[in-house]
Amino acid sequence: MSKKVAVVLAGCGRGDGSEIHESVSALIHLSRHRAQYSCFAPDIAQSDVVNHVTGEPSKGETRNCMVEAARISRGQIAPLATLDVDAFDAVIFPGGFGAAKNLSTFARDGAECSVLPDVARVIKGFHASRKPIGLICIAPVLGAKVLGLASGGPGCTITLGADEGANAQASKMGAKAVNRWSTESYTDEAHKVVTTPAYMCDAKPFEVYEGIGRLVDSVIALCK
Amino acid sequence: MSKKVAVVLAGCGRGDGSEIHESVSALIHLSRHRAQYSCFAPDIAQSDVVNHVTGEPSKGETRNCMVEAARISRGQIAPLATLDVDAFDAVIFPGGFGAAKNLSTFARDGAECSVLPDVARVIKGFHASRKPIGLICIAPVLGAKVLGLASGGPGCTITLGADEGANAQASKMGAKAVNRWSTESYTDEAHKVVTTPAYMCDAKPFEVYEGIGRLVDSVIALCK
Repeated sequence: MSKKVAVVLAGCGRGDGSEIHESVSALIHLSRHRAQYSCFAPDIAQSDVVNHVTGEPSKGETRNCMVEAARISRGQIAPLATLDVDAFDAVIFPGGFGAAKNLSTFARDGAECSVLPDVARVIKGFHASRKPIGLICIAPVLGAKVLGLASGGPGCTITLGADEGANAQASKMGAKAVNRWSTESYTDEAHKVVTTPAYMCDAKPFEVYEGIGRLVDSVIALCK
Repeated sequence: MSKKVAVVLAGCGRGDGSEIHESVSALIHLSRHRAQYSCFAPDIAQSDVVNHVTGEPSKGETRNCMVEAARISRGQIAPLATLDVDAFDAVIFPGGFGAAKNLSTFARDGAECSVLPDVARVIKGFHASRKPIGLICIAPVLGAKVLGLASGGPGCTITLGADEGANAQASKMGAKAVNRWSTESYTDEAHKVVTTPAYMCDAKPFEVYEGIGRLVDSVIALCK
């Protein structure tokens, strides 16, 4: 039976949405496993629109997370509010600032961040159902927040690369961070949380692709 | 010596720019070969902005090809006008409607299309220098137009999948089309033109990734 995997996107582009190389790598590896993937994104305005040449916010411009994410998924997408945990075997969140600006307020608030209610619902739901959760790049902070000891959760072990600031914030949220390179993934077996640092490290595209391949392999292997 | 490869983008998204899976696949494979890649895009307004959920044009919205393409290249990009053929060993054009709407008018005009002067300059320049040209998905129509017999060129052999309409237009431009599946690439040895149909076929992401891998392997092998 082919596995059903939900992929949660948050726009299209590293600066204000989902990191494109990471998202595409996840979809390629899922299709390689013959998994049936379905993409979701919150049907809300992005927190900002970033000009990716200058790195500066584009003032006065607004874009919708789901409409932009559909560029990555080639049109196949549904509102995150409709993601039914019971309909899937696993969930994967690619990285990019969208995870820290649209899915949560981590970019601004660090350990004191809030997470979109639908993101919390989805992570708690997969965790409670003992279904694997894959988190890429900066997206592991979503797991750290929702499942962390500081939120009354069980805690979990994740990777955020060697980024000291992010690792310190994860620790404050009651998650343990381990250092891995982008070609590797780490599996918290107790909680079925699989993470890879991807572009949290200064890695090449093929290294990010390789690490996300290992993450997808582990996520699929952990499916019931 | 690592090879220097120019990648020409035309926005970010299959409907109005560069197809994202194809572009990312090319960058991953180039980095796997330890090639130094540089991304370029025309610094012009896109012909339109397409809502990728509905597939409909988003009226009154304008976006710049290069600024959007920088989402795919993670910020590293330069205007196509600055692409110096002498500085590179090869050039690759991913597909997506951007190739047929921003780099040329093929989507509207078929065989009677015009091509951006900088696109014609680049393709003619690499061809004249006997340097390989990689064209993905619908982008082979750019080679068919610029190098085709109908434009006074030498003609070339390309693939556009099994799309009868596109194949007929290529023939009118004085190019020969051969049918290949997305996991394959085709090399016109005489003209060092390498093509793969990618999403011209109803293929899975990993198949598109595999075919673009073969295209990049061939392009690198043909570099002097």
